[in-house]
Amino acid sequence: MNDFSVIGKRVPKLDALDKATGRAEYGHDVSLPGTLVGKILYANVPHARILHIDTTRAERVRGVKAVLTGKHNPAHKFGYGGDNTPLKADKVRCRRDEVAAVAALDEDAAEESLELIRVEYAELPALFSAEAALAQGAPLVHEERANNLFTRYNYSHGDAERALDDADEIVEQEYHLPYVTHTAMETSFVLAAFDLQGHLTLWSTTQIPFLLQRDLSEALGIPGRDIRVIQPAIGGAFGRGLDVYPFEPICALLAKHSGKPVRIAFTREEEFFATATRQPAHVKMRTAAKRDGTLWARDARVLLDAGAYISWGAVTPLVMMETVASLYRIPHAKFVADVVYSNNPPTGAMRGYGNPQSTFFVETQMDMLAEKLGMDPVEFRLRNANVPNEETPQGLKITSCGLRECITEVAERIGWERRASVISHQSSVISHQLSVISHQSSVSSRQSPIRRGIGIACTLNVGGGARIYRSDGCGATVKVDDFGRVTLVSGSTEIGQGSETALAQIVAEALGVRVEDIMVINSDTSVKPWDVGTHASRTTFIAGNAAWIAANDAKRQIFDAASKLLNVSPDELECRDRMIRVKGDGDASSRMLRNEPRVRDDASGKTIAFDKVVRSMHYREGGAVVIGTGWYDPPTKLVDKDTYKGNISAAYGFGAQAAEVEVDVETGQVRVLQIIAAHDVGRAINPMYVEGQIEGGIQMGVGYALTEELQVREGRILNPSLLDYRVPTALDMPRIESVIIETSDPEGPFGAKGVGEMGGTPTAAAIANAIYNAVGVRLNQLPMTGERVLQAIKEKQRLETGE
Amino acid sequence: MNDFSVIGKRVPKLDALDKATGRAEYGHDVSLPGTLVGKILYANVPHARILHIDTTRAERVRGVKAVLTGKHNPAHKFGYGGDNTPLKADKVRCRRDEVAAVAALDEDAAEESLELIRVEYAELPALFSAEAALAQGAPLVHEERANNLFTRYNYSHGDAERALDDADEIVEQEYHLPYVTHTAMETSFVLAAFDLQGHLTLWSTTQIPFLLQRDLSEALGIPGRDIRVIQPAIGGAFGRGLDVYPFEPICALLAKHSGKPVRIAFTREEEFFATATRQPAHVKMRTAAKRDGTLWARDARVLLDAGAYISWGAVTPLVMMETVASLYRIPHAKFVADVVYSNNPPTGAMRGYGNPQSTFFVETQMDMLAEKLGMDPVEFRLRNANVPNEETPQGLKITSCGLRECITEVAERIGWERRASVISHQSSVISHQLSVISHQSSVSSRQSPIRRGIGIACTLNVGGGARIYRSDGCGATVKVDDFGRVTLVSGSTEIGQGSETALAQIVAEALGVRVEDIMVINSDTSVKPWDVGTHASRTTFIAGNAAWIAANDAKRQIFDAASKLLNVSPDELECRDRMIRVKGDGDASSRMLRNEPRVRDDASGKTIAFDKVVRSMHYREGGAVVIGTGWYDPPTKLVDKDTYKGNISAAYGFGAQAAEVEVDVETGQVRVLQIIAAHDVGRAINPMYVEGQIEGGIQMGVGYALTEELQVREGRILNPSLLDYRVPTALDMPRIESVIIETSDPEGPFGAKGVGEMGGTPTAAAIANAIYNAVGVRLNQLPMTGERVLQAIKEKQRLETGE
Repeated sequence: MNDFSVIGKRVPKLDALDKATGRAEYGHDVSLPGTLVGKILYANVPHARILHIDTTRAERVRGVKAVLTGKHNPAHKFGYGGDNTPLKADKVRCRRDEVAAVAALDEDAAEESLELIRVEYAELPALFSAEAALAQGAPLVHEERANNLFTRYNYSHGDAERALDDADEIVEQEYHLPYVTHTAMETSFVLAAFDLQGHLTLWSTTQIPFLLQRDLSEALGIPGRDIRVIQPAIGGAFGRGLDVYPFEPICALLAKHSGKPVRIAFTREEEFFATATRQPAHVKMRTAAKRDGTLWARDARVLLDAGAYISWGAVTPLVMMETVASLYRIPHAKFVADVVYSNNPPTGAMRGYGNPQSTFFVETQMDMLAEKLGMDPVEFRLRNANVPNEETPQGLKITSCGLRECITEVAERIGWERRASVISHQSSVISHQLSVISHQSSVSSRQSPIRRGIGIACTLNVGGGARIYRSDGCGATVKVDDFGRVTLVSGSTEIGQGSETALAQIVAEALGVRVEDIMVINSDTSVKPWDVGTHASRTTFIAGNAAWIAANDAKRQIFDAASKLLNVSPDELECRDRMIRVKGDGDASSRMLRNEPRVRDDASGKTIAFDKVVRSMHYREGGAVVIGTGWYDPPTKLVDKDTYKGNISAAYGFGAQAAEVEVDVETGQVRVLQIIAAHDVGRAINPMYVEGQIEGGIQMGVGYALTEELQVREGRILNPSLLDYRVPTALDMPRIESVIIETSDPEGPFGAKGVGEMGGTPTAAAIANAIYNAVGVRLNQLPMTGERVLQAIKEKQRLETGE
Repeated sequence: MNDFSVIGKRVPKLDALDKATGRAEYGHDVSLPGTLVGKILYANVPHARILHIDTTRAERVRGVKAVLTGKHNPAHKFGYGGDNTPLKADKVRCRRDEVAAVAALDEDAAEESLELIRVEYAELPALFSAEAALAQGAPLVHEERANNLFTRYNYSHGDAERALDDADEIVEQEYHLPYVTHTAMETSFVLAAFDLQGHLTLWSTTQIPFLLQRDLSEALGIPGRDIRVIQPAIGGAFGRGLDVYPFEPICALLAKHSGKPVRIAFTREEEFFATATRQPAHVKMRTAAKRDGTLWARDARVLLDAGAYISWGAVTPLVMMETVASLYRIPHAKFVADVVYSNNPPTGAMRGYGNPQSTFFVETQMDMLAEKLGMDPVEFRLRNANVPNEETPQGLKITSCGLRECITEVAERIGWERRASVISHQSSVISHQLSVISHQSSVSSRQSPIRRGIGIACTLNVGGGARIYRSDGCGATVKVDDFGRVTLVSGSTEIGQGSETALAQIVAEALGVRVEDIMVINSDTSVKPWDVGTHASRTTFIAGNAAWIAANDAKRQIFDAASKLLNVSPDELECRDRMIRVKGDGDASSRMLRNEPRVRDDASGKTIAFDKVVRSMHYREGGAVVIGTGWYDPPTKLVDKDTYKGNISAAYGFGAQAAEVEVDVETGQVRVLQIIAAHDVGRAINPMYVEGQIEGGIQMGVGYALTEELQVREGRILNPSLLDYRVPTALDMPRIESVIIETSDPEGPFGAKGVGEMGGTPTAAAIANAIYNAVGVRLNQLPMTGERVLQAIKEKQRLETGE
């Protein structure tokens, strides 16, 4: 029944060739005449008073045009927590605190100048964990605050504590989740230039150009109207670009003080230590079910170490609680999260935004509980799965929902029945299990240390925006020129995800033209209408709806004109492949035609070219050009500030992933063989990009599960390089089978829902469940490195053998 | 009564500082990575068959990436006459014909390669004047045509021939008007780049980006939808940019064949010989009046040498005929113009577009006729001046009209009564006149060869667009951001005239914000809505109206929201200096306030900030962002194709200039002492820019009158340099007094009419009339060089003394 011309097609990205051949212009490629190199001096002490900064020698370096310290800060603080300044004036709160900055003609001069800055510190006792920060008498990270607790999220529905006391079966576990970071292909970049009227233009790798405009206004003390943000091609961001960071106002201040454009391009090392990380979390959780397999209650207590400054990352508990309270139908849920200051590196937003963490602990406990119940994990999940058109106790209005289909698909495709034979032996000793598994695997010998296992995990995600700011909207305009060329100006932000082309497909389908007829303009706050930014998997849904509305506004104008040319009502028309025609069969059309011969375009007179209609509107007295406008802000609410309830998103995406792993019991090494990922995306505007998002998400999920960890000791990042911070490469990746479940969401553009984040959300849990299935150990700390897996196996053997 | 905040203010250009400090990016500053240098080989024979072109050696030069000849042309011809090709394949028709082109890594390689191209010609007899081209048996410039006459314009109203036979007084004269050229500060530039999907982007000094899109589509045989035109800052154009010229498709072809971006930046010498010139004209004209001083009839016969190819310059007779048929109230008029091919340089559009020529012969004959009638030239003009709200026999609907005021103002300010004493002696011999004039001038001795004279001339110009294309429209959008920053996206083209800032003033006034709150985006066909281009003094009027409409659309949205906040009807609101308030006195407002206290911004509660209202619209459920759209196409018609009658413009501008000159009777040198210029511009949106346009126009008018002439001999331009082609410099310029007459046009934005061209239109005639007043000679050939003036004085002396 889906009679689409463009939607659902595997259209290559409009900028694919440019990017593949190196023609695309990234921030790092941008330079204005006379641009200076900006560099930052970091504190490298975790907590200290700044007694004195001597920049005398630094200023004398030839080619240095500006040397700034905290005394050059504007008056106001900035950032989500209102606790940050560009450069630190009185004290430093973490090692990466910015204490001075220089702008110079070249990199060498800038480096030399930095080395000549002398900072005298008086060190203070430092806090290197959330627990330490909450301890009685702990030193204050921000002395104007009463304590180091930034905020507490306290959610509940039903009566979880009582329900847990009464439950038939209950599981309980503690988790330690690590610092990880985005490792976008392109490091952070900003170029700041003032014109002679005092207008500031930034070329930036931001994801939130309009909020950056506002945040920088705050950080610099200049009106927002004087700030323009331009986004060149962006090589990934993954949440990194959701906040304003000190390097951005620092760059603007350097530009102001030097009178020249200044660029700051992070080195890879800076990218590791001076951008934000995902918060490390310490979690205690319990889940309970009734004997019949009905999920009954969850209680999660989360401690998040936010580091020295508060970013939008502090809001991730909102998403964590969603998984705790609304993934599966659950009558009782409690979620408490404390966000705490420490002298560790500042944390921020990262793809999934709390969900990879919470899905890990929620979905591993689902498996634990199934085992306790003696139920198959798939059956347990199916029994409790969310269903369409049901509001959760949290207030999420679930409309379209393909969770059951996702679970069924992945179970079937991974061969869940193979696992069933394993699970019955799961509680027995490793040595016994070995023989079963090696029987399954034709390649492994009877002596092989390799064990195979299969696991599943599900996910619930916002798929129709996420109202965490007062507006979750996006604006768009659609202009059609005399040649049928269509320009979509979209407020949305392209960070490499392909949203440009998805939006072009939406506009092409709505108008009935080809995707190559669409040009997308989306990189300049002065040109594009407002949008909150790229986050929360919202762009296809929100910007897609805005583009669709604008395209339909343009289409209405064009069809009105065409209807006069073809002498039919606009309702009777449709446009396909650049031709406007009367809907329905040829007979009806030719009947209509015989009555009223008019300007027609083909021999039969039933059609007229799209661009010809546009020209006919333009080239006449009282003519017009076609400009459609659109604005979409989803019908959602900010969650209630006390109860955290409310419908945060206009649609919800669901998914299930099944992982098959091999575990080497002699080394603890885990190899993921395959992941089957089924995701309910409402409608795949472009299946290739949906698969791309899923595969990219899984890549990050595999890293989160097995290898990625920023090793932070005493506030210092020990492994700030791609050699030591282990991101899975192409060779490390399993076979991935992406299954797209289409539920045609009633609110989404052509039924689409967001998919940007959920590909990586259940991956770690699925792998953890597979590891347990393989070797009977549960790791409650990520990543599940060989060392940790091996230790867990040995511990298990020790317990079982009673050694 | 004009209670404007922004309109009428001398706001500096928004880009003034950028341009003054060299920060503005002109086309010549643009280069993409890997851009090649494009160079063109010109024929340098006036008319010849191309027998063979050998590019073998040229291709071997190191660094050369493409060598093209006519065989690389696309199939179709292009240009207004449909008679041109990028490179010439079979024959050349003028010396500047493009026969080959190269693209190379650098200038030296390109030059070297050009020098190695060998072209074998068989020369043909060539035509170096329109008369020769029309002679029986003349060789054909374009062999597919029956003869060399491109077209004849034949206009009449009343019965001019009969009226001239019956007239009381009649004057008759022949005129020879020269080749002149634009000499814009920036030479012609184009950079062409194809992306890997075959989309072509051009950075261009064009004035007509959307027509260029269409014309290039034609010239290159690629769809218009695949062509994007970007206009960097443009250093003047003056009509040069109204056509597509061969160098533009050549550049695109070089880019296509080399696979690299290619730039062609004209040298100053190329700018002289390879852009278009104003057509030379040979004119025979008669003007008649009744004894009572009523203007009675005009008959003008014009022969225009268009050169080897036809451009939009061929349409200038439409404007010439307007001055002949509608400047002053005249019952009988005839105008016949033949546009003729020759082997001279191709001609094109130039500021004034026929009007400087026709105003020269119309307004010098007005003086001749006044003299015959024994009337004061000012009185004669006033008696016949156009009046408001009268349709001319040609069909021009004159609405606002300040011609009489203009005449009166300049006569008064130049001290016309001084001249009156001279005129009575004008018919006497020079020697007698000398004593009178030297009496006037306190500095000149009794023996001085210097004579002073005063002259006047008037002008009629389109001031509300000029429909010479099917659409004379312009589109605009106005976006208001959360900070009250306003972006105007205008279809119009800025070529240095300051239209950006004038449009910003219109939008600022309409919205009630400050001009610095407006950013104007107008340089990219993909972003901006359609506009026919910058010509015919149309931008302030047409684009101004479009901007005004878009601003009012935005304002309506904002006032609707504000009316709810202030609990009054939107009609009761006004906005000034970023504050929305209830119109009228404080009492009424506070009365209203007492009844209904609501969200108000000041202590008294009567006002609310503009940006605050915009944010209140955005940050709420079901919110919106403010985007207004506007399209304005004036209520005009294309002239009738047979009678040339019709109302081509929605408003008409008028002006009068009085010139005072000194003529050295020993050398013939003319020095212009002062020009008083009064122009009816409807409303001066920015008096400084109006003065700038008038002064710039006068500078070109003085050059046209006295010094500028491209010396063309046998199709060769002899003086292609700024040393030999004499443009008046600052030191050569007279004192100028600009008088702005405001008639508040009913159709113009805030009453404004166009002023872009008329500053230069009457200047040459005013100077010629002043020369006659000074020394009693009439020069019927421009420029009135010292040599020609001296010769005329000697001729006059010879006749008078009977030698």
